[in-house]
Amino acid sequence: MNILQLRNLILNFLNEDLGLAGDITSSSLPDKEGRAVLIAREGGVLCGAPVFEMVFKSLNGEVIFNWMKEDGEELEPGSVVCELRGNVKEILTAERTALNLIQRLSGIATETRKYSKVLEGYPVRLLDTRKTTPGLRVLEKYATRVGGALNHRFGLYDAVMIKDNHIKAFGGVRRAVEEVVKNAPVTAKVEVEIESWDELEELLSVIELVDIVMLDNWSDGEVEKGALTLKERKEDIKVEVSGGITYERLFFLRELPIDFVSTSRIITAAKWMDFSLEVLWT
Amino acid sequence: MNILQLRNLILNFLNEDLGLAGDITSSSLPDKEGRAVLIAREGGVLCGAPVFEMVFKSLNGEVIFNWMKEDGEELEPGSVVCELRGNVKEILTAERTALNLIQRLSGIATETRKYSKVLEGYPVRLLDTRKTTPGLRVLEKYATRVGGALNHRFGLYDAVMIKDNHIKAFGGVRRAVEEVVKNAPVTAKVEVEIESWDELEELLSVIELVDIVMLDNWSDGEVEKGALTLKERKEDIKVEVSGGITYERLFFLRELPIDFVSTSRIITAAKWMDFSLEVLWT
Amino acid sequence: MNILQLRNLILNFLNEDLGLAGDITSSSLPDKEGRAVLIAREGGVLCGAPVFEMVFKSLNGEVIFNWMKEDGEELEPGSVVCELRGNVKEILTAERTALNLIQRLSGIATETRKYSKVLEGYPVRLLDTRKTTPGLRVLEKYATRVGGALNHRFGLYDAVMIKDNHIKAFGGVRRAVEEVVKNAPVTAKVEVEIESWDELEELLSVIELVDIVMLDNWSDGEVEKGALTLKERKEDIKVEVSGGITYERLFFLRELPIDFVSTSRIITAAKWMDFSLEVLWT
Amino acid sequence: MNILQLRNLILNFLNEDLGLAGDITSSSLPDKEGRAVLIAREGGVLCGAPVFEMVFKSLNGEVIFNWMKEDGEELEPGSVVCELRGNVKEILTAERTALNLIQRLSGIATETRKYSKVLEGYPVRLLDTRKTTPGLRVLEKYATRVGGALNHRFGLYDAVMIKDNHIKAFGGVRRAVEEVVKNAPVTAKVEVEIESWDELEELLSVIELVDIVMLDNWSDGEVEKGALTLKERKEDIKVEVSGGITYERLFFLRELPIDFVSTSRIITAAKWMDFSLEVLWT
Amino acid sequence: MNILQLRNLILNFLNEDLGLAGDITSSSLPDKEGRAVLIAREGGVLCGAPVFEMVFKSLNGEVIFNWMKEDGEELEPGSVVCELRGNVKEILTAERTALNLIQRLSGIATETRKYSKVLEGYPVRLLDTRKTTPGLRVLEKYATRVGGALNHRFGLYDAVMIKDNHIKAFGGVRRAVEEVVKNAPVTAKVEVEIESWDELEELLSVIELVDIVMLDNWSDGEVEKGALTLKERKEDIKVEVSGGITYERLFFLRELPIDFVSTSRIITAAKWMDFSLEVLWT
Amino acid sequence: MNILQLRNLILNFLNEDLGLAGDITSSSLPDKEGRAVLIAREGGVLCGAPVFEMVFKSLNGEVIFNWMKEDGEELEPGSVVCELRGNVKEILTAERTALNLIQRLSGIATETRKYSKVLEGYPVRLLDTRKTTPGLRVLEKYATRVGGALNHRFGLYDAVMIKDNHIKAFGGVRRAVEEVVKNAPVTAKVEVEIESWDELEELLSVIELVDIVMLDNWSDGEVEKGALTLKERKEDIKVEVSGGITYERLFFLRELPIDFVSTSRIITAAKWMDFSLEVLWT
Repeated sequence: MNILQLRNLILNFLNEDLGLAGDITSSSLPDKEGRAVLIAREGGVLCGAPVFEMVFKSLNGEVIFNWMKEDGEELEPGSVVCELRGNVKEILTAERTALNLIQRLSGIATETRKYSKVLEGYPVRLLDTRKTTPGLRVLEKYATRVGGALNHRFGLYDAVMIKDNHIKAFGGVRRAVEEVVKNAPVTAKVEVEIESWDELEELLSVIELVDIVMLDNWSDGEVEKGALTLKERKEDIKVEVSGGITYERLFFLRELPIDFVSTSRIITAAKWMDFSLEVLWT
Repeated sequence: MNILQLRNLILNFLNEDLGLAGDITSSSLPDKEGRAVLIAREGGVLCGAPVFEMVFKSLNGEVIFNWMKEDGEELEPGSVVCELRGNVKEILTAERTALNLIQRLSGIATETRKYSKVLEGYPVRLLDTRKTTPGLRVLEKYATRVGGALNHRFGLYDAVMIKDNHIKAFGGVRRAVEEVVKNAPVTAKVEVEIESWDELEELLSVIELVDIVMLDNWSDGEVEKGALTLKERKEDIKVEVSGGITYERLFFLRELPIDFVSTSRIITAAKWMDFSLEVLWT
Repeated sequence: MNILQLRNLILNFLNEDLGLAGDITSSSLPDKEGRAVLIAREGGVLCGAPVFEMVFKSLNGEVIFNWMKEDGEELEPGSVVCELRGNVKEILTAERTALNLIQRLSGIATETRKYSKVLEGYPVRLLDTRKTTPGLRVLEKYATRVGGALNHRFGLYDAVMIKDNHIKAFGGVRRAVEEVVKNAPVTAKVEVEIESWDELEELLSVIELVDIVMLDNWSDGEVEKGALTLKERKEDIKVEVSGGITYERLFFLRELPIDFVSTSRIITAAKWMDFSLEVLWT
Repeated sequence: MNILQLRNLILNFLNEDLGLAGDITSSSLPDKEGRAVLIAREGGVLCGAPVFEMVFKSLNGEVIFNWMKEDGEELEPGSVVCELRGNVKEILTAERTALNLIQRLSGIATETRKYSKVLEGYPVRLLDTRKTTPGLRVLEKYATRVGGALNHRFGLYDAVMIKDNHIKAFGGVRRAVEEVVKNAPVTAKVEVEIESWDELEELLSVIELVDIVMLDNWSDGEVEKGALTLKERKEDIKVEVSGGITYERLFFLRELPIDFVSTSRIITAAKWMDFSLEVLWT
Repeated sequence: MNILQLRNLILNFLNEDLGLAGDITSSSLPDKEGRAVLIAREGGVLCGAPVFEMVFKSLNGEVIFNWMKEDGEELEPGSVVCELRGNVKEILTAERTALNLIQRLSGIATETRKYSKVLEGYPVRLLDTRKTTPGLRVLEKYATRVGGALNHRFGLYDAVMIKDNHIKAFGGVRRAVEEVVKNAPVTAKVEVEIESWDELEELLSVIELVDIVMLDNWSDGEVEKGALTLKERKEDIKVEVSGGITYERLFFLRELPIDFVSTSRIITAAKWMDFSLEVLWT
Repeated sequence: MNILQLRNLILNFLNEDLGLAGDITSSSLPDKEGRAVLIAREGGVLCGAPVFEMVFKSLNGEVIFNWMKEDGEELEPGSVVCELRGNVKEILTAERTALNLIQRLSGIATETRKYSKVLEGYPVRLLDTRKTTPGLRVLEKYATRVGGALNHRFGLYDAVMIKDNHIKAFGGVRRAVEEVVKNAPVTAKVEVEIESWDELEELLSVIELVDIVMLDNWSDGEVEKGALTLKERKEDIKVEVSGGITYERLFFLRELPIDFVSTSRIITAAKWMDFSLEVLWT
């Protein structure tokens, strides 16, 4: 993750909550040092600790953190996740922004972990997609990694992905692949989304230009046949299965000769995990 | 909504997907005018049409939209929501960003509508909270309005909200209210979060400075008693109930002498509503 | 005040003076530590000390400040306000920007203090308006607070203010209030500007939706009558008087049963207070 | 003026007033085309017409302006300055920001005109200084030009200005001039501020490197003698008089063999000129 | 190329030349429509036409362009490249920025073409590197494409590139590859820089994880042997040769069983190609 | 140089290389402190040391530098320029951006030094122009100073430069000078580009308004005659020679009664100087 961009993101998030006038409630508080604890109010996978910390530090470099848990750990409800010490006024001002981030990211990591666990011990890996909340992609993709997935491409710029609409626009798989490869950086992998046996056949003629084949909305049986056909022609081609992925279906898919299963649900169906910050008054 | 800030947001979202190199797949496509349709792949409340449109227009001013549905309408699965005409290359480049927005916002509007419908015909209104995805607050709060809720404050800057930690820091409800009011703009409403009868008693002594009282985590019975006590002392005080709000509980709460029920669940538990964009090749 | 936005403002101000090439005079100076003193060259109310300090620190974190006076204090001509120690080159480079800020803000605080003193001991409070120098609102509103006023709303976004043009557009006070309230956040106060007895009459029918009434350009006698009529109907309604406010008139207005007097003159008629920075060469 | 920077400034100014939520009062207005007129409520010099127009156009490209007056014209109280036609909602939203600018700039142009008129028909020209409101320098210097002054340097970057502190740091006028000139762009004019006859003497030894001499806080008599001494040595040296400039003193100064009189008062003592925008409801 | 980022770049470039005060020479010009022609003052490959056009349009949407040549064409000295019509003042203001861009980019395209021509008809392709002028990478990489090269990765984020320092830090090629692949997006190609036969041997054990091997600073003979060894083990591995690439050496390298030759010289040794803009006064 | 703008530039440069995802190769490295040395791989003039350092520090404040050479020194091939100590991962991530800057700037300083050495001991000074890489002007002009040149104007905003097109637009030299001077800041020098004896004659009539005359594309003999004519009329007029400047021609020009020779070649024909960063593994 690019730390410079992350710093900017967090400043934007704080400004969204603070406006120009700032925290008109807490600003009247006396300056006082204090302690607060971050508590998980339900079970799940912790994700976003460094981001949480950076929110407070963006307001005041002198907040001190003592983490009892780290990203990726599974938390029991009620777990104390970390302790903060610092100016209470500033802790209260940054609280909501920091909590919103850790709740969203832990929600995603928790949902992802549920899916990725099914694949443990199998060579098939879980992937995320580009269906991410606008503005948060780099963070949400971090959360899927923490949850046990690998990242698919980060955007339109870092890998070639030829989909049905590209194929139709070019008038065929072969031409689409050949044309796109001509202009793309040689360091970019080329993935092609295949929806039918006809497309798969045509793809075989340019398979040396292709790194990953996505079988989109194929039945389990067809997936197996498709993957075998592809790997027979090019041993190290990667096969990704996508479309209609459910938790239950993973138990079948993990047995197939494929490399990746990708689903947006680990992000789009994730609920926020509940956390609270409690100031300790002693 | 401030249209100038919205334009900036959308440019940031597009840049997140495009990076510096842009869409290295679609850039090889021939320039061709075409049509595409936006389709709801599941039922729910449409939200985000103007934002969806602005994404495409931010890349190319000449895309033309023909909307069959508008924000707030309930969609059947399979509904055609709008038709676009324009350069296919640019439509494909902006597609994912535009879909991510309309899916997230419609998901929130759909979840909110479920809750707000319970309150129809009752004087109690549903409110959102500041638990919103960082960077998207203004859009997510738009979605809750479309879903039938009213907005609570937009940030720390536009209303005073005295919570347990402020009360503890000042050493009491009365002192907290008096001190905060001294520095706040006179145009800002003052809300106080009350967790016990003792606090409520103390609050009565400064109730002329307070506009809204939030009863946080009170049982239904206590809520009723608390609301009556408050309104007896100050007829036009607003009472907000929060904490542990569930769909089922709304059927009880709507019968009580309160003004608002607020819950973050309409945002934090909302799943994305599924849409797809289909290019028509004729 | 949101410290993050303030930091950005100050960087913009420095960049305005420095351009790309920077200070082409001082850059040739030898690096030398030195001392300088900030002196008030005329009497007035000090305002902007923390901002002044932040300007120098934005260039170089190691400037040290020793303040003899603080914001809100009344200064005699010739008072030494603070002493700085640091790199003389950087002190000279930041000097003008820092002085421009403290002179403008102290000018406003001084003008405001003149007005607010008239109201001391009376329940009537002085308010500012949105007539502020573009780009400086948060600072100028800080200066009016330092001068003894309270802040009216910060912008179009944090309170509802229904003016004559809105009333005309909606075709009446009642409809204007009802329609605007439907869409506004429930945490936003509602103020209505009233120019005649007819409008005031109509307002009474929706007074439960209104928090503040502004009597705009009413004579002192009419103000009294209007305020009494309003408070009779709703005890805790706030009454604000605006339009044609002069220093002299405050002596009459403070005796009336009103809550606020607002005037833009504390900002628009304020002259800069003169300060100078003198480097001490020993 | 750099139009690109001006556009950014204006967007910042609008955002300051609009926040994220926008104009929560006007947003409920029905969409309606309408007319409004800009009226001068007191006499003075108009300044800022193009900026005023750009504020409205930044929100909506379709507002139409019909100007009856132009920048630099002297207005009678009550003059109709221009007529606008467009969406009333957007006109009301941009109104305050646009008025704040034209009022501040016309105030400065009016104050400047008062001074510059005294110099009409004399070779002496009025100059502004770098005492400008932070963030508004380019606009305020435009206003002084409209008022009849010429601009002194825009910042620390576009001319060399050697002041007392530089002279002390280098240990003398001669050394200061020689050192600074070594590093400065050859296209930058060199000005030296001189406070005594000793300094003036020393300056003569490097006068070939100097373009402008500022006599700072010299009496009228001394100014004359100083100017003559300088011009005798270098015919085309420019002499600027500064410090303690008052309206009355200009009548003396204009008779002296000097080139420029500079004063910050045309900006720091300028009051806003009053304008109002009236929507016409017909 | 992401057009949104390009627009920002161009605005930054114009602001660098315009500062706050703008073009203080041309601003005094009368407004006049006129024509100008862009002329190549020496031979070379044209590159940057759309960027050149966008510079003028960023100031004024109404400049009209008539291009006689397009990017990639080889120009004779004296060729008329395009004709512009528009406001002469604005043409003169944008001139230098636009010329600077087209001169730099055409210089790079010209240098690249010289190298890429040697490879015409051979399967070996010329690649650029990350040695690009900071801030201009996307444009300079566009220029190398126009000159006949293909792009290597755009940054640290869009492909894995394991170099000597990474190998040393991990304590070996094998471990470096295995560890890096664990965290990288599955869509990112993996390239390894190999400096010795020992490293090449070790690489063979993880070659299934690697897409491109760079032989860095190998002699022509060793390159051949290395490439054959690699391709024997993995038929579709790509081999890139880098280090000490000269024009002359390309005639040898093109005969070898390799895929890519990369050199920074097409950018770092490129001189600007000379163009001038001539206003036609008729 | 304005350090605040420089910091922004460097952040932009790092972000260009890092994208959102950051360094996907180095991010897998273990955290380890280490040393690295910067080595000049060819001879030339060092330029950019402070900028190089700032790149690393922008990622991590704790990198420590020990410089053996400083800007302006002539380096032998193989010279060790500085030693860095810090987190190896961060050193590798910032390496390319830092090297690209120091290589480009040292290349310019080296080229400039070659030219400026010819003028040593002569009163004629070498100047740069506005032909600089967009976005890097302030740095490239720093490099020409380090190489021994003086800076010509930084942009269109800090000096008046009347060229052939302005003269034609105004219909003559005299009118052009008079009109432009009316609106320009009095602190801006006025330079006029003269292409013929007729223009020079006309210029004499307004020479008191002019500071620098550029003889553009005049032969050496004409230059001498032109310079003498000008200086006879106004002793301290500066004469700049431009157009067709070559290294060889400098030996003639330095003997003439002129002040400046300006050429863009010190920037546009400069090749990058080669440096490498070597991590020391001990």
